[in-house]
Amino acid sequence: MKASELARVLGGTLEGDDVDLFACGGLEEARPGDLSFCKDPRHAALVATTKASAVLLPPDWDRGAPCAVIRVADPDHACMAAARLFAPPEPVRAPGVHPTALVDSSVRLGKEVHVGAFTVIEKGAEIGDNAVIEAQVFVGEGCRIGAGTHIYPQVTLREGTIIGRDCILHCGVRLGGDGYGFTNGRREDGSIFIEKIPQLGIVEIGDGVEIGSNTTIDRARIGRTYIGPMTKIDNLVQIGHNVKVKGYSGLIAQSGVAGSAEIGAGCLIWAQAGISGHIKIADGVQVGPQAGVPQSLDGSAKYVIGTPAMSMKELAAITLAPKLISKLKVEIKALKAELEALKAEHGRGAG
Amino acid sequence: MKASELARVLGGTLEGDDVDLFACGGLEEARPGDLSFCKDPRHAALVATTKASAVLLPPDWDRGAPCAVIRVADPDHACMAAARLFAPPEPVRAPGVHPTALVDSSVRLGKEVHVGAFTVIEKGAEIGDNAVIEAQVFVGEGCRIGAGTHIYPQVTLREGTIIGRDCILHCGVRLGGDGYGFTNGRREDGSIFIEKIPQLGIVEIGDGVEIGSNTTIDRARIGRTYIGPMTKIDNLVQIGHNVKVKGYSGLIAQSGVAGSAEIGAGCLIWAQAGISGHIKIADGVQVGPQAGVPQSLDGSAKYVIGTPAMSMKELAAITLAPKLISKLKVEIKALKAELEALKAEHGRGAG
Amino acid sequence: MKASELARVLGGTLEGDDVDLFACGGLEEARPGDLSFCKDPRHAALVATTKASAVLLPPDWDRGAPCAVIRVADPDHACMAAARLFAPPEPVRAPGVHPTALVDSSVRLGKEVHVGAFTVIEKGAEIGDNAVIEAQVFVGEGCRIGAGTHIYPQVTLREGTIIGRDCILHCGVRLGGDGYGFTNGRREDGSIFIEKIPQLGIVEIGDGVEIGSNTTIDRARIGRTYIGPMTKIDNLVQIGHNVKVKGYSGLIAQSGVAGSAEIGAGCLIWAQAGISGHIKIADGVQVGPQAGVPQSLDGSAKYVIGTPAMSMKELAAITLAPKLISKLKVEIKALKAELEALKAEHGRGAG
Repeated sequence: MKASELARVLGGTLEGDDVDLFACGGLEEARPGDLSFCKDPRHAALVATTKASAVLLPPDWDRGAPCAVIRVADPDHACMAAARLFAPPEPVRAPGVHPTALVDSSVRLGKEVHVGAFTVIEKGAEIGDNAVIEAQVFVGEGCRIGAGTHIYPQVTLREGTIIGRDCILHCGVRLGGDGYGFTNGRREDGSIFIEKIPQLGIVEIGDGVEIGSNTTIDRARIGRTYIGPMTKIDNLVQIGHNVKVKGYSGLIAQSGVAGSAEIGAGCLIWAQAGISGHIKIADGVQVGPQAGVPQSLDGSAKYVIGTPAMSMKELAAITLAPKLISKLKVEIKALKAELEALKAEHGRGAG
Repeated sequence: MKASELARVLGGTLEGDDVDLFACGGLEEARPGDLSFCKDPRHAALVATTKASAVLLPPDWDRGAPCAVIRVADPDHACMAAARLFAPPEPVRAPGVHPTALVDSSVRLGKEVHVGAFTVIEKGAEIGDNAVIEAQVFVGEGCRIGAGTHIYPQVTLREGTIIGRDCILHCGVRLGGDGYGFTNGRREDGSIFIEKIPQLGIVEIGDGVEIGSNTTIDRARIGRTYIGPMTKIDNLVQIGHNVKVKGYSGLIAQSGVAGSAEIGAGCLIWAQAGISGHIKIADGVQVGPQAGVPQSLDGSAKYVIGTPAMSMKELAAITLAPKLISKLKVEIKALKAELEALKAEHGRGAG
Repeated sequence: MKASELARVLGGTLEGDDVDLFACGGLEEARPGDLSFCKDPRHAALVATTKASAVLLPPDWDRGAPCAVIRVADPDHACMAAARLFAPPEPVRAPGVHPTALVDSSVRLGKEVHVGAFTVIEKGAEIGDNAVIEAQVFVGEGCRIGAGTHIYPQVTLREGTIIGRDCILHCGVRLGGDGYGFTNGRREDGSIFIEKIPQLGIVEIGDGVEIGSNTTIDRARIGRTYIGPMTKIDNLVQIGHNVKVKGYSGLIAQSGVAGSAEIGAGCLIWAQAGISGHIKIADGVQVGPQAGVPQSLDGSAKYVIGTPAMSMKELAAITLAPKLISKLKVEIKALKAELEALKAEHGRGAG
């Protein structure tokens, strides 16, 4: 897109060459053909060295720029608008079932549903109005998918999974796999046995939930593994059987929640953190990156970190221990010296 | 299912309304339409506040309940039996090859094998009797799959992978990907090179192994990456090239084992733990959640935790360090005061 | 393959039985039918107890062996050569589009491209010469894949993804999923809202990049998530939106890089490590296994470890704290005793 056309669309004015622009990018990462943006004079040095072909700047900018300039009232906002123009067009998923898709005759399809190529939908499933099931998806028997939900390619839903309205499931999501449950011990003859515990429950996902690529959520042993409404789950997260997430919570990439744990409302579980099984995290608690939580958190600490998880203050104390020890060593050495001196003096004094 | 019918099937007696029941659930998570259970009078408060429509209770329960009651000899056992009745029926995977599946003419299929829609089985593969290969699976050239093994949708087996009898592979399992191996350095002219080391071996899985959703196991550089019999692997686990797991071990979700490490028999590697490459974990050792094991473990500690992994006692000592330091500070202060007093007194005494 | 034939191919001489050999394996893991190797007399005990059917040994080996011996100048090198002979033949992916593949008529296919069964390539995509797109792959609208790139089964590329030349993408890789981005707060009426931030950018992968099984890389919010040339990424790695990896770096299994972080050239991020968002890792820095990096690293430390990440020396100091505290306790006790003795003596002396 020509810079002049973009300036017109964004309601700004072009200064300099009418360059061709193809994408947006931050000042440092931008390459020729990119549009960048800046509103803060403190970043003037980054503007001066950017490789962007054009930069969005506010009307009062007086630090110059090494490329074309488009002056706009709000550079941040204008860049977001430009990004929408540059973005690859969102693929159209028109209503209809692709001729290669296998949809069992008993499946109840809502209105205006899209089913992509090579997708399998097994018997008894129900798909709500305007749902989009993309290519190469597997929907097991009796699954129920709410209206407006969007399922990207190569997702698998094992039998009986329930998904609410307006959810988004990214590529490679696995819902309803068997939970990890075994009994083991020794038989009377001394030999070891390991037996699978049947995983008879389901996974139920509330409305407005988003689940990232390759995340796995196991079916309940009995009852439901439940993800409450508006919960946002990132990529590669593991959620064990019978976990309950109340809703409006976030679980960041590669975090894990073990079986039967309960996460309150409005919680944030940061990346690579782990929640032990059978514990409860109170509403609104944040669990920091890589933290490991072995016991229930009642909300008296709003943010925990470390393994085992503790307050920031407690973790800082552990990290500071070597420094404090060094200080104590110095003090002890001084005490020793004083004591020796006193002993010597005393010897003389008493002599 | 009517509560009265359920009572009859479970050999119990119904007290209260003949409600409709649809699922099982714990006392706290249960919703209307659910059946719950309790055998311990100490949980009477949870029974009193449950939202379940009916609850399984032992004959001698005298704490009442806010809903219908089904009295049975063993509530736990009865709930498990009820869960089987409520569970979505396990999909039938009848023997036969789906017409859309692509099975090379050279493949040797055992008796009563199921092959699902859009599955690809390449040349030279062998599939044992009664094996189930569900929809959208990829089985590479020359793979061998044992009798009775069940492979869920969207699993990929790269060429040459060997799987034993009665294994279960959940959705998205990746076996036989190239191990991570590169040589790098500088050429005589100073430029950097990074070269791929060919990964010429295979993955071999013993009998009775279960592998969770989206878990990855790499092929050996040379020889075999080996998972011994009855090993149970959870979701999102990573197992590097040339790893050996003796058997009868468990690897919990998101744990990782680096290349050429060896895990003994009867080990348990807890969630998010990491085992370094080229080390050995002795039989029966447990590695705690999020632990990082940099060196071989000879079994003298049966349970390790932390990074680097250590005994519970050692980890506790580190966690307790700040408290101990505070105590030492107090003692040193007291010593100082005493010393000052003595010096003052000595001054007088000697004066 | 007969041991005699193998000896001939490897330019060695066979001593002992002309056994049948099927695979290579280390001395300890080898089983009957395996060929093993040893060049170091210090490992003579392992040779003595190996279960291999034959072993490659150097000409001057005088410690014997419990099986057939093939003498060669360089046993390591010969074993690698033998492994190539034993390896399952690499499947041939001949040029051509499988009849079940769905390639949109607008797709530009280079010369000699292979497209496997049930693969979907959407409109406007471009595939370079000699590229291999295996079975069951999804290539979204407008994706560009460079010449010679190999994509294994069940990879998904969301719309607009760009991949360089000679890359390798292993099974289950997910490129271009939406980044994790939401705005949330409270409306005037007190109710909570959580809104998705549009993810309008793309993923761009440089030349010679390898990406392991089930790894996920999110599309940028604006602009590009960028993986520079020759970067080697292992399995189950998570890379957030707008991350930049300069190139020639390694990211080991289960590591994660949060949104907008920048990784320099020649970095090595070890297994299960985590890099926080919006920070920079200088060229050549190594981040140890399970380390958590909360702040930018300027390269003054070449290797960091622990959470929060620190130098080896700093981590060792924390680990050693309990020992040092015990020593201080002993010293304080001794001081106390001396002080008591002095006081007693002083009492007498002054009396």
